[in-house]
Amino acid sequence: MRVQTMCAALVLAACANAAAQTAVAPHPQPAQPPSLAEILEHSPASDWRPLDPDSTLYMELPTGRVVIELSSDFSPEHVANVRALARAHYWDGAAITRVQDNYVTQWGRVEGSPHDRGAARANIAAPEYDRPDRDLPFTRLPDPDSYARQTGFTNGFWAARDGAGKTWMPHCYGAIGVGRDNPPNTGDGSELYVVIGQAPRHLDRNLAMVGRVVQGMDLLSGLKRGTGALGFYETPAERTPINSIRLASDVPEAQRVNLEALRTDSATFQAVIESRRFRRESFFVNPTGHINMCNVPLPVRVMPTH
Amino acid sequence: MRVQTMCAALVLAACANAAAQTAVAPHPQPAQPPSLAEILEHSPASDWRPLDPDSTLYMELPTGRVVIELSSDFSPEHVANVRALARAHYWDGAAITRVQDNYVTQWGRVEGSPHDRGAARANIAAPEYDRPDRDLPFTRLPDPDSYARQTGFTNGFWAARDGAGKTWMPHCYGAIGVGRDNPPNTGDGSELYVVIGQAPRHLDRNLAMVGRVVQGMDLLSGLKRGTGALGFYETPAERTPINSIRLASDVPEAQRVNLEALRTDSATFQAVIESRRFRRESFFVNPTGHINMCNVPLPVRVMPTH
Repeated sequence: MRVQTMCAALVLAACANAAAQTAVAPHPQPAQPPSLAEILEHSPASDWRPLDPDSTLYMELPTGRVVIELSSDFSPEHVANVRALARAHYWDGAAITRVQDNYVTQWGRVEGSPHDRGAARANIAAPEYDRPDRDLPFTRLPDPDSYARQTGFTNGFWAARDGAGKTWMPHCYGAIGVGRDNPPNTGDGSELYVVIGQAPRHLDRNLAMVGRVVQGMDLLSGLKRGTGALGFYETPAERTPINSIRLASDVPEAQRVNLEALRTDSATFQAVIESRRFRRESFFVNPTGHINMCNVPLPVRVMPTH
Repeated sequence: MRVQTMCAALVLAACANAAAQTAVAPHPQPAQPPSLAEILEHSPASDWRPLDPDSTLYMELPTGRVVIELSSDFSPEHVANVRALARAHYWDGAAITRVQDNYVTQWGRVEGSPHDRGAARANIAAPEYDRPDRDLPFTRLPDPDSYARQTGFTNGFWAARDGAGKTWMPHCYGAIGVGRDNPPNTGDGSELYVVIGQAPRHLDRNLAMVGRVVQGMDLLSGLKRGTGALGFYETPAERTPINSIRLASDVPEAQRVNLEALRTDSATFQAVIESRRFRRESFFVNPTGHINMCNVPLPVRVMPTH
């Protein structure tokens, strides 16, 4: 009964193993396909790439560290601004000011707290909401998408395409975009948001996308929702303070976490996709055989020590 | 600057109005289309239906009330069990035992706490993972879906169809399913979960779906994530206690919240869909013209007093 209670619902390999250890199995168990963990464990080292310390941000919260990977493929001017703001320690003493359920968590400096912006530009002329797809690799998914003609992955990030030469980073869970006011080009990178719900893909091609959370996402998604308009907190006490946001390259090596990401053009990643498209674990009586780009895991791990 | 900070990112009508009130507009603003709130405000009363007190659950948490609407269209035997368990006060003193990021929040009775199950059956023979689509209304969306041939809405809930006669309730944000162990038919309704992230549609047709959260979703989604396997809390102190789960019909009328839901076969709901498919607010420079079923709001409101 104890095992049943703890295992009930959505059993994965970990739980099946626990049950096997504590109960006498009345029938032989059907062979289980390799789990996601096993696929990754047996992958060649060459299928992984280290995160670039110049494109990795550490957001230090009272509850722990959030690690963000920046991508310069889609909105390079905005990413350059984010990098400059981090170098200037712009977000020291900033705060999470907004948590709107099934939508976004957003952070920035609060009213009346100007701060050194370093080499960051005051505004960015080009919208950078999409870009030509030429010169970008593309691991394409075979399944349809509600919003884009083609979907897949490029250089470790999700990518959508219109089939007519344009590509953009979609608003998947964990994607980070640049907040802006109503007029386009008003976002300078000082206010950022991360998707914490069902992918709000209607925002695609309407905001500049700079990266994604690769570790510590739960520290941004598990926050109390704001009760003001758009999920803004109504009182300063509700905000989560941000101690700092730093480029990994500005942090002493001993304080870095050396992560590597699975290459999205690797054979291992293809195996990951197929294992998620067609769930062969015995739990699944009706494997779907399809997947949405935003449901494909983008694995990241601490670099193995040799 | 204050307005800019509070409005930055994903500006909606509320914020545009705030800006208009506090700044001298240098140019005439383009006409804004009716907002979602305006569409609902001008809808005829006949486009709404009251929630049935026999199909409405109140989950009372220390932080407030979560309101759940049950649907008997997809898994009637499981819903009957859930109703029987609520009538027997089965969940008094139960707890939220699992919060897995970007996946589910789950609740049930914890180990070693048997409780009266009333008229609930010990197990349910039929899986109830899908059903024939005949005799169910269907408001179909025109856009493709990654997982199902057809998607849309029936009697206030999301519905997916295979185009060959079967339909099921998909795992959209806020959908509630019946936890089970590895063998099918082991879920009896005593452990329930709600989707709190990107729709995990690979679970579709693999679990019995009983309803959705219509109010208080933030009380289930904004919880600290569990650090054990599958997001289970590792210590009892981390669990959120459940004071009770009651059918609205078992609660004195003075303690009920009289909600009504927009009919998904109404003209107003069609207007809601179109307003979300093609966002005409001036914020959107690239309206997508598409939508996914899980991104369509299913409006619920307190019944107007006449």
